[in-house]
Amino acid sequence: MKPVTAEVLNETECWQLLAGESIGRLAVCTATGADIFVVNYLVTDRAVFFRSAPGTKLALIAASPRVAFEADGKHHLHHWSVVVRGVAHRIDSDDTIEESGVLGLTTATADEKWNYVRIEPGSVTGRRV
Amino acid sequence: MKPVTAEVLNETECWQLLAGESIGRLAVCTATGADIFVVNYLVTDRAVFFRSAPGTKLALIAASPRVAFEADGKHHLHHWSVVVRGVAHRIDSDDTIEESGVLGLTTATADEKWNYVRIEPGSVTGRRV
Repeated sequence: MKPVTAEVLNETECWQLLAGESIGRLAVCTATGADIFVVNYLVTDRAVFFRSAPGTKLALIAASPRVAFEADGKHHLHHWSVVVRGVAHRIDSDDTIEESGVLGLTTATADEKWNYVRIEPGSVTGRRV
Repeated sequence: MKPVTAEVLNETECWQLLAGESIGRLAVCTATGADIFVVNYLVTDRAVFFRSAPGTKLALIAASPRVAFEADGKHHLHHWSVVVRGVAHRIDSDDTIEESGVLGLTTATADEKWNYVRIEPGSVTGRRV
């Protein structure tokens, strides 16, 4: 099949595209290898926020906070993908939680999810094909 | 917003849904944390195959073969997501490469990609929301 050429996105384009999506994937290292979770997220001030029930995901992040986050989608017939690599930490300030807007996030399941996580970006890369 | 209930998929459903998609995400552990890559993939005999140019991704897999792979999509108005956790290894048998069908995979970029990788599944989990 015919291969296509990838266009590298600049950081501003990456954040704009990320802000227009709501479902992403979080990659975390565990004691037995990599794991990956689908999360509902939002972007505020060039950081990624999501919420999580207490449990495996949150424990993994605490043990191994250097995560990668990916979201992709279609824009003007092109497929784009953006990856944020950075440090995830649970937010413990009520003010930060409120300012981020994360309280309004849809959750994929009916479990109550009262932990809020912020990914402090180290690098942001993206491409469109 | 109204939360919805997730339905757990059985293994057969997971493989059927994976077989109907072609873009997935590979999570790999690195010396500095988790990383994530978008890959074009296919499913043969309940294993995931993709190809990769020589470079970072392939070196990371060799160093840390315990990966996680995720794909998702829409099916009958529901959003599904499947995660395969397992061991990735470069295929070095021409017969296996040919039998897998991986030679016919579309690549997202025009680089020539002559390494083929198989993920031997350890666990397969999925859900539909």
